[in-house]
Amino acid sequence: MQAVYNIAEICAQHGITDVVLSPGSRSAPLTLAFARHPALTVRVVPDERAAAFIGLGIAQAQKRPVALVCTSGTAGLNYAPAVAEAFFQHVPLVIFTADRPPEWIDQLDGQTIRQRNLYGAHAKGEFEFPVDTAHADAKWHSARIVNEAINLAQAAPAGPVQVNVPLREPFYPKAGEEIGYEKAVKITRESALPAELSSDAHSIFVEQLLASSNILVVAGQHGADKQLIQPLTAFAAIYGATVVADTIANLDEMGDGLIGKHDVFLAGLTSEQKANLRPDLLITFGQSLISKSLKLFLRDAAPRFHWHIQATGAVADTFRSLTSIIRVEPATFFGSLALESTSTERSTPSVWQEQELKGHAFLSGFFSASAQPFNEFSAFHLTLAQLPETTALHLANSMAVRYANILGISQGKQIEVFANRGTSGIDGCTSTAVGAALAQPERPVVLLTGDVAFFYDRNAFWHNYPTPNLRVVLFNNHGGGIFRLIDGPRQQPELEEFFETRQVLTAENTAKDFNLRYFSVSTFAELDAALPVFFAANGGAAILEIFTYSKTNAAFFEEYRAAVKQAFS
Amino acid sequence: MQAVYNIAEICAQHGITDVVLSPGSRSAPLTLAFARHPALTVRVVPDERAAAFIGLGIAQAQKRPVALVCTSGTAGLNYAPAVAEAFFQHVPLVIFTADRPPEWIDQLDGQTIRQRNLYGAHAKGEFEFPVDTAHADAKWHSARIVNEAINLAQAAPAGPVQVNVPLREPFYPKAGEEIGYEKAVKITRESALPAELSSDAHSIFVEQLLASSNILVVAGQHGADKQLIQPLTAFAAIYGATVVADTIANLDEMGDGLIGKHDVFLAGLTSEQKANLRPDLLITFGQSLISKSLKLFLRDAAPRFHWHIQATGAVADTFRSLTSIIRVEPATFFGSLALESTSTERSTPSVWQEQELKGHAFLSGFFSASAQPFNEFSAFHLTLAQLPETTALHLANSMAVRYANILGISQGKQIEVFANRGTSGIDGCTSTAVGAALAQPERPVVLLTGDVAFFYDRNAFWHNYPTPNLRVVLFNNHGGGIFRLIDGPRQQPELEEFFETRQVLTAENTAKDFNLRYFSVSTFAELDAALPVFFAANGGAAILEIFTYSKTNAAFFEEYRAAVKQAFS
Repeated sequence: MQAVYNIAEICAQHGITDVVLSPGSRSAPLTLAFARHPALTVRVVPDERAAAFIGLGIAQAQKRPVALVCTSGTAGLNYAPAVAEAFFQHVPLVIFTADRPPEWIDQLDGQTIRQRNLYGAHAKGEFEFPVDTAHADAKWHSARIVNEAINLAQAAPAGPVQVNVPLREPFYPKAGEEIGYEKAVKITRESALPAELSSDAHSIFVEQLLASSNILVVAGQHGADKQLIQPLTAFAAIYGATVVADTIANLDEMGDGLIGKHDVFLAGLTSEQKANLRPDLLITFGQSLISKSLKLFLRDAAPRFHWHIQATGAVADTFRSLTSIIRVEPATFFGSLALESTSTERSTPSVWQEQELKGHAFLSGFFSASAQPFNEFSAFHLTLAQLPETTALHLANSMAVRYANILGISQGKQIEVFANRGTSGIDGCTSTAVGAALAQPERPVVLLTGDVAFFYDRNAFWHNYPTPNLRVVLFNNHGGGIFRLIDGPRQQPELEEFFETRQVLTAENTAKDFNLRYFSVSTFAELDAALPVFFAANGGAAILEIFTYSKTNAAFFEEYRAAVKQAFS
Repeated sequence: MQAVYNIAEICAQHGITDVVLSPGSRSAPLTLAFARHPALTVRVVPDERAAAFIGLGIAQAQKRPVALVCTSGTAGLNYAPAVAEAFFQHVPLVIFTADRPPEWIDQLDGQTIRQRNLYGAHAKGEFEFPVDTAHADAKWHSARIVNEAINLAQAAPAGPVQVNVPLREPFYPKAGEEIGYEKAVKITRESALPAELSSDAHSIFVEQLLASSNILVVAGQHGADKQLIQPLTAFAAIYGATVVADTIANLDEMGDGLIGKHDVFLAGLTSEQKANLRPDLLITFGQSLISKSLKLFLRDAAPRFHWHIQATGAVADTFRSLTSIIRVEPATFFGSLALESTSTERSTPSVWQEQELKGHAFLSGFFSASAQPFNEFSAFHLTLAQLPETTALHLANSMAVRYANILGISQGKQIEVFANRGTSGIDGCTSTAVGAALAQPERPVVLLTGDVAFFYDRNAFWHNYPTPNLRVVLFNNHGGGIFRLIDGPRQQPELEEFFETRQVLTAENTAKDFNLRYFSVSTFAELDAALPVFFAANGGAAILEIFTYSKTNAAFFEEYRAAVKQAFS
């Protein structure tokens, strides 16, 4: 059993601090090992689907691996959605799945499935803990693979790793018996030595940059990165590059140097106008884009060169134009090239900047116009403006993250934006935000979500840990309103029953169940009155439910689309 | 698109009648194909985890495959717990997962994961629908694999099969455009021709049976099987065999010919007494056992011969004594051998029968004793006695199914017993019961469950389909009470926080949310008064919440255990 207790010690020595555990019998030795370790914070969450997303939220916030522990059987399968999200979003999770010993697999014992390689193509690796550790080699093996698993989870690109731990009875020490941790347990550390640009590569890039007439830098999803803003700004100035980023790229601090209203104007411009925006050289970094308009524009734009900056891992050819993969961190790339002093700073191509300014003006004008019916797009706009400073903002799939990307986040408030865009699922958005709230009690965590995502993941709240800093804004239109905004399903007789799927729940009973403050509004006046009270610091965890009608929402969004067309084409 | 619409037609021609669908955009062509097919009942359930278990419940009840349809991304991963349960419980599910076309996998598009072979070792097979079906060969291929998938799901042992369906835009027909089904679509049917005992094999078995002094037949989980009762009863009489079965074997109709109180008396007998019960020849059929006492007894008993009767599929050596695998259906085996007229019917060994009678007497005596505090075991006993006739009884993991197995089901009421003992998970017990209620509106469906399983799977109710025949009895002790009944965790200081995991929810708000009648009781008098009203036919869907204290429950169960020891040893 010592080898099992040492798992917790190895995790702690690798700097893991947080463990999310779901109760079980087979997993008891792991439970005791983690629960009794003085350096670990262990939280118990009964629904494993929520538990894994809570772990993901903690890992995102802490920027280090979180350990998950579950019992044998389907427990570990309930982790699968969060594991896939972690895999594609590059979040490190070290997953310990308790198991029966190999001789009892497929022998009709309870809670026994085939746990080897449980996450298939969505884990970075899978390890089988030895079932017998009496032999010295086996003990070395047991400690070695825990080290390997933690190192693999952290190595760029980070991701989820499974350690399957078969356990024979007895599971428990005698009453009162202490369990010991071997402080001298085997530890193997892996140092990442980031790549630098060689002087040869540097010269070639500078030459190509200077030879390019229209340089567009597009950032996909990217965690807030203080090291990146200055070099990227300098790079853009030196080479006259335009920087475009969705809100999940966390580049709002760049201020006027950033194009962020592309989701507005690209939807309105004619093909001819768009042709003027086409890049000669496209430089990308980060993960996925939200803006479908930007994605389609870039696919059509067919730049002569497309460089993607990504230090490690498989690279996507999102725009079908990829020509170069550059294996350094974005901050290294832009910083290194920004050191170059070219004879003259080239001015930013004004076409993008012009549209950006029009985009800003259009949005202010559009929302200040009178006679809006109460609708979710307007309510979203008002809510975003009131976000507290230093908020960790979680945007649920699918409409919340889309609205936020159109509207943009208020600059200067040091708001950090998160969204589960690795797989763009609705299944764990609330749990991820709950994990973020648990991990960062000192800052406000705000979740903006729709009703389908919210009720899907209600078990996010089903545990005993308070999250006084959490604020959930729930846009409830009683169904998958997004389907009413898309041309295809909107025109089908099946729209209401099979796509939108009317659902009648409100969050009032959920708030009662979990002892959360509850606000509900269905007019602009109520929303205006509620927002300051709702967001006030030290008020405690709360849900603000904003009721709208999906038909009104669809009609208003249609007005918005028509206004965009009129304003930009 | 015709090839996609034909999927629904092929399903219908294979006799599939029920489809559970979760909303999505990528899956739209599948949604339309199934929703518009006149022969299919399509229900929409937004939480895919619940949707798949609802499908499982329908398939169990109908004894034919159910089709599941979901969109791309993590949607299909939320099916995984139900898929594993279906795999081990041998329930046919045909799963259609919409996907992006192969060229867009891993290219940072939304809701895109690696969907090939999504269920790994827990699906019987996986098929990739062709993305282009313009070529005649591809169209033949597309129809062929749907046939193959349905046939594979049904072939014994039945189970889940995935068909991954990559889809390119456009997803929708023009407004008002009809979609057609090709009635002459390719159909390939597979006929199962059940094996019979050859006369040679028959003679050998008879000889060995007659040479065995102590024959024990043990039935694992088995669906209600009208063809089995008579031959098994006759077999037992002819060869003097004892038949022992857990409640999930659905053999209660055997009446006095069946040993069903083994979970009571095996826990009380001394090793010496148990030695008298040891079989010379053990004959088993069906899947898992619930009774740990019986399992341990059989592992210790080491019979000289252990025959397992199972027509197809991998066979478990649950008792470490397996000597022969006999590849026919149990009804065929017992029926064929029961035709034999031996010179004299051998009398049933009286040792088992004696203990069975003592077990019955003990239980009546124990529960009629006065001065019981209100506790869940007693409440369970009272509830079981009141079950309506012809109930489809669903027993949740873990305590509900254990209590029921100790207490037994009232005979003569034609009650059919179901439990998710393929994987023994708590994750979908409610959804499975909801599926059963939807599929069999003409009979009462009763779920007996604990609070952890109940709240885990609350989304079972989150859809728009009434289940007036559903009655949920919720034994709420505010945590995983089972851990307080097991010696190991009970003695650890971590019991309350990390094993039992106190949870504060009651079902009252859930009942309000989903418009279910709600009864709550916390005394014997209240329970007595509530049960007839709660179970009354035509009352509509209802939850009866029975509140108990886990410490009282544990103390009372301890009394029960002590009484067993005293009565039987």
